[in-house]
This record gives sequence, C-alpha cells and structure tokens, in this order.
Amino acid sequence: MQIVIPLFDRFTMLDAIGPYQVLNTLPDTEVRWLGAEAGPVQDESHTAALVADGVWEDVPHPEIVVVPGGYGSRALMTDERALGWLREAHEHSRYTTSVCTGSLWLAAAGILDGLEATSHWIELETLAQYGATPTSQRVAEQGKVITAAGVSSGIDMALRLVELLHGPEAAQATQLAIEYDPQPPFDAGSPDKAPAEIVEVVRAVMASQQEALRT
Amino acid sequence: MQIVIPLFDRFTMLDAIGPYQVLNTLPDTEVRWLGAEAGPVQDESHTAALVADGVWEDVPHPEIVVVPGGYGSRALMTDERALGWLREAHEHSRYTTSVCTGSLWLAAAGILDGLEATSHWIELETLAQYGATPTSQRVAEQGKVITAAGVSSGIDMALRLVELLHGPEAAQATQLAIEYDPQPPFDAGSPDKAPAEIVEVVRAVMASQQEALRT
Repeated sequence: MQIVIPLFDRFTMLDAIGPYQVLNTLPDTEVRWLGAEAGPVQDESHTAALVADGVWEDVPHPEIVVVPGGYGSRALMTDERALGWLREAHEHSRYTTSVCTGSLWLAAAGILDGLEATSHWIELETLAQYGATPTSQRVAEQGKVITAAGVSSGIDMALRLVELLHGPEAAQATQLAIEYDPQPPFDAGSPDKAPAEIVEVVRAVMASQQEALRT
Repeated sequence: MQIVIPLFDRFTMLDAIGPYQVLNTLPDTEVRWLGAEAGPVQDESHTAALVADGVWEDVPHPEIVVVPGGYGSRALMTDERALGWLREAHEHSRYTTSVCTGSLWLAAAGILDGLEATSHWIELETLAQYGATPTSQRVAEQGKVITAAGVSSGIDMALRLVELLHGPEAAQATQLAIEYDPQPPFDAGSPDKAPAEIVEVVRAVMASQQEALRT
C-alpha cells in the first residue's frame, strides 16, 4: 500500500510527522515523501527541512493521501499543478486525508464540496467559503475523506485510519508502540477550553505571522 | 536561546518533531538540527530524513538540549564522540532533556546517575543498568534534567518546558496553537492500560526489529 505525504514550502512539521509515525508501522506499506521539487522541503518557519524523495507526479494514484497544513497551503489553493495532482489522486484513492490547514488545499480542489470538514480552529470559517460545512470535531470522517483539526490532531486521525484499515487491535498496538497516553500539563488545547484572553493572543499572533508571510 | 536537537542515524521522527513543534514557537529562540555529519539524517526505518544543518560540535554549549530516541541511540552509548559532546553540553545547559530511548544516551553519559528517569516503557529496565532509577511517569523532572516516556510524550515534556521557561500562559498559548486537545480513539497508550495480549505483541515486534538492526 502506498501512502503519499505531499510536501510543500512552509508546511507544518508535526502535521506530517504525527500521521507518519503512526502509519509507518503498518505492514506492507510504503510511505512516500513527495514535493513540488525533489530534495529538502523547508517547514513553516524555515527552521527544519524534510527530504522529498521525488515529486508529487511520481505517484499519481496512491492508496492513501495525507495532506499536511501550514501557512504554505494558501499558495496551493490557486496552484493548478497542485490542484490537478490532488484531484487525480483523490479520484483513485482509498482514503484522502488532511491535517490542519491541509484541508484548505482539499477544499480548493473541490474535494470537500458538501462535506463536513475540519481544519485548524483559526481557519474553520475559510472552509465554508469553499463549499464545505465546518465542524469542530477533532477528526471529521465523511466516507473516504477524513479531515483532522490543528497540528497535533493528525495522530488521532491516523490511529482511526489504522483502525479502519486493520481493525482495533492494530490501532491499539500502534498507540502503545508510540506510547500515546497524552498528559498535557494544561487543558487549553481548543478554543472552547483555553481562557478567552489566550485565544485572542494566539489568534493575533497567528494572523500577524500569516500576514508577514503574505507580504 | 539556542536549542539543539542532536540527530543520529535511526532516530525516531516524532521524538524530535513533537518537542520541536512546541519549542519553535518561543520568542528569541533558535532551534539547531545537528548531526554526526551535516546533511540528511535518516530516521529509524530509513523512510524519512531530516536535514542537519551542521554537526554536534558546532554548538558545544546550547541552553537546551532535546535528545530524541530511536533504535540508533544504542550505538551512541559506546560512541566516545557522542558521549563527550553530550557531557560537555550538559555541563553548561539550562535544561538537558530526552524523549523515549534518548534517555539511554543520557544514561550512558552518566547524566542520569542517581536520578529518577524514564524512557520508552520497553527500555525502562535498561536505565537501571546505568545507575538511574526508572519511573513510569510520563515526564520525569529532576532539576535541570527532564526525561520523557515513549515517542509521543515529547509533546507533553516540551509544554512543561515552556511553562518552566515562560510561565503557564505561554504554555497554554502554545498548546492552543498546536490544538493539542488529544482524543485518541482507544485508551491503550501505556502498558498499564493496553490489553495484556497487545502489550506482548508490541514487545515481541519491537524486540525483533531491534534484533534485526543489530545483526
């Protein structure tokens, strides 16, 4: 089974690595890292780089697509090459999935039309502009299209994918192998749970970072 | 503030990227990816590679060290160069931290002598052979030495580190930015919680993988 994680300039590392660490344990599975170009692909802050071993078009029909997010996903929303590859991949895929703002790329490709979908909480409303119905579920499952919320949610999404592909025992074994027994020191991981003033700070910081990249 | 994440052949991606995604949001912080050699460093299964932008010795005295684990950490336990760099870094660090079997490297360097420490659950007993007191806490804090349990625990550890460095509001803001509101589909993330037969399967698979790499 081929799993493609398509990379692009300014993707978010954990969006890609969370699901990777889960899915790479599956038997008879090959994960491919593909980029707009082959070679190192810089993450959101240009502080870390993952190596793409080929370009998106090298695998037109993967069984599973896992699209990470990051500020860079905005540029893909009007990139005909990126939209074309994703549409073609989705047409033949067993599962088309995204983490965080990776769902904006799916939305712009028309893949989320009429579906419930999620994204980073700060971008949920953007999904509605592209014909999706935003939901604040952590993992939104609509047939073969599965979208996950912000950054860290890809781990939860991928465990659900393992359950769908190989059953609950396989998912539990994977969870145990990566010792995923989360104990965050605070209960502030969603805008419903975090103090209102912290939500506003994060909203402002993220908006200014995105603006800085745009200009 | 300089944070070094030392890479090595056959490290575990999520061990490194979990803390990175948390710590890279801090103000006035530079994360450095350093390897035994500069260039792409292959992960545990040689399926993914992160780029090291220099060698360990380029930064002898980082404020914070975050040591990832992976099957490759075994080789570092008898590597005088690796042990020497880590001892020197620890002597001057503000915090010396590890995720998963990264603690074996710390233990072999003598950094865990007489301290409570943790690791991936499958390697806890190994710590005792190197003078540490194993604990199954997810994050074990002993002054400036902080060790975390298996793979995914580095996210929890790093959030605690943000709290220590910048206070609880900063940690909550970071948690919200990465939407860390974990909702694993099962409660099987530790050997105490997973069904006994699944613990045995994972133990057998991991032992055979390690054996395969050894021979």
